[in-house]
Amino acid sequence: MMTPLYKTKLYLNASECNAQRQISLPLLIQRLIETATEHTDLLGVGYSHLSEQSKTWVLSRLSLSMDKFPSINTYYNIESWISMINRHFVERCFAISDDNGNPLGYARTVWIAINLETRRGGDMTEIMSHAPILDRACPVSSGTKIQPVKAPESISTHTFGYCDIDFNRHVNSTRYIETLLNTRQVEFYDQHAIKHFDIAYMDEIHYNDRVTIYTATTGENTTTYEISREGTPVTRARITFN
Amino acid sequence: MMTPLYKTKLYLNASECNAQRQISLPLLIQRLIETATEHTDLLGVGYSHLSEQSKTWVLSRLSLSMDKFPSINTYYNIESWISMINRHFVERCFAISDDNGNPLGYARTVWIAINLETRRGGDMTEIMSHAPILDRACPVSSGTKIQPVKAPESISTHTFGYCDIDFNRHVNSTRYIETLLNTRQVEFYDQHAIKHFDIAYMDEIHYNDRVTIYTATTGENTTTYEISREGTPVTRARITFN
Repeated sequence: MMTPLYKTKLYLNASECNAQRQISLPLLIQRLIETATEHTDLLGVGYSHLSEQSKTWVLSRLSLSMDKFPSINTYYNIESWISMINRHFVERCFAISDDNGNPLGYARTVWIAINLETRRGGDMTEIMSHAPILDRACPVSSGTKIQPVKAPESISTHTFGYCDIDFNRHVNSTRYIETLLNTRQVEFYDQHAIKHFDIAYMDEIHYNDRVTIYTATTGENTTTYEISREGTPVTRARITFN
Repeated sequence: MMTPLYKTKLYLNASECNAQRQISLPLLIQRLIETATEHTDLLGVGYSHLSEQSKTWVLSRLSLSMDKFPSINTYYNIESWISMINRHFVERCFAISDDNGNPLGYARTVWIAINLETRRGGDMTEIMSHAPILDRACPVSSGTKIQPVKAPESISTHTFGYCDIDFNRHVNSTRYIETLLNTRQVEFYDQHAIKHFDIAYMDEIHYNDRVTIYTATTGENTTTYEISREGTPVTRARITFN
């Protein structure tokens, strides 16, 4: 079914919630990725189709703006559509709403189908030649480029283990985000809601990789994060809190 | 609805899979916990009901036997029912089957509703006085008592962070399991499937707790695990591999 707008209704039960009794940022992003995966499967260009061509989908960038996160024991909706296809990437948008259809937030993501051997992208317009594009408002900017962390205010390290890796044998996209959030104490999140989140996956992290996480305040309520491996940045991210 | 048998049909998409392109043990157990949570909500004795009495559900023990784990891009079913209620605990069973209804495995769990202040259980027969019990085969034994690890073959440490804690502000039950699995390399799991898993949660682990994980071979294909905090065991587990 070549439906341009894919909709899914989900329920957030207690056992899925974070300490603030809401959906956590990593779980929300996991749900967005799952929604994208399901829609892409329906469009006939999912992981199983791509693997026949020795390719796989990777998430390259994500920007998310939330007025309110879905909270414990409530239904929420995710709508997703492809907003742009060009030679280099596919842009996919998401609208998150509550059970009554009131908007909670929006996300904009960039995906690349990479070759499993070369780890480089091909021509997306070929792969997606039959995929429908939807012209629909998605009020979230991809934000300005995330700058390097020059004078880190906190430095921590993490080694990724077996449970952090996905079916591609690379660290799951949401596990990167956990390492960023884990740089702060639980009490901070009682006081500060996440308003805007940007992440740029610059290189894949592998099993057993040991990374360093640098953070810096780069605005009144904004923190910039850099995940670095052997001195080279592999991911940059930025969170604006309320 | 006082349905004694709760059924849910789920789909395992690519983005949810582990390195072996199956459901991971922690995610399967998360799905069992979610299924139990949904059924308990339907029975009117869920988390929101219990919180009015300053109580909450905690998972105390789990035993799981799997012939085969659900694999990538397939549907699977979880059926769940209460098999026993006594003063001290509630026993809940699960049957996991593939899309054609062929059994994949079974689980048996023990739950306690604890008081949020005292962290102790009350009389379960009072709380569950209206809950239906189902007499149905669940071919998984709760196993023999998990023995302490006396002569550890591996010792590792882990500190739990913000993303490891749940809405009760304790470490999520599945995060304990990840620390156990992370003691081995990914290649081990390519060669060895999990056949049987037992876990006994002896004490709650809190945010920022630093734990030590001890492992020992205690049978031909069996590893026993102990998670210890400040010298006191907080969780014991055992895995038999194929």
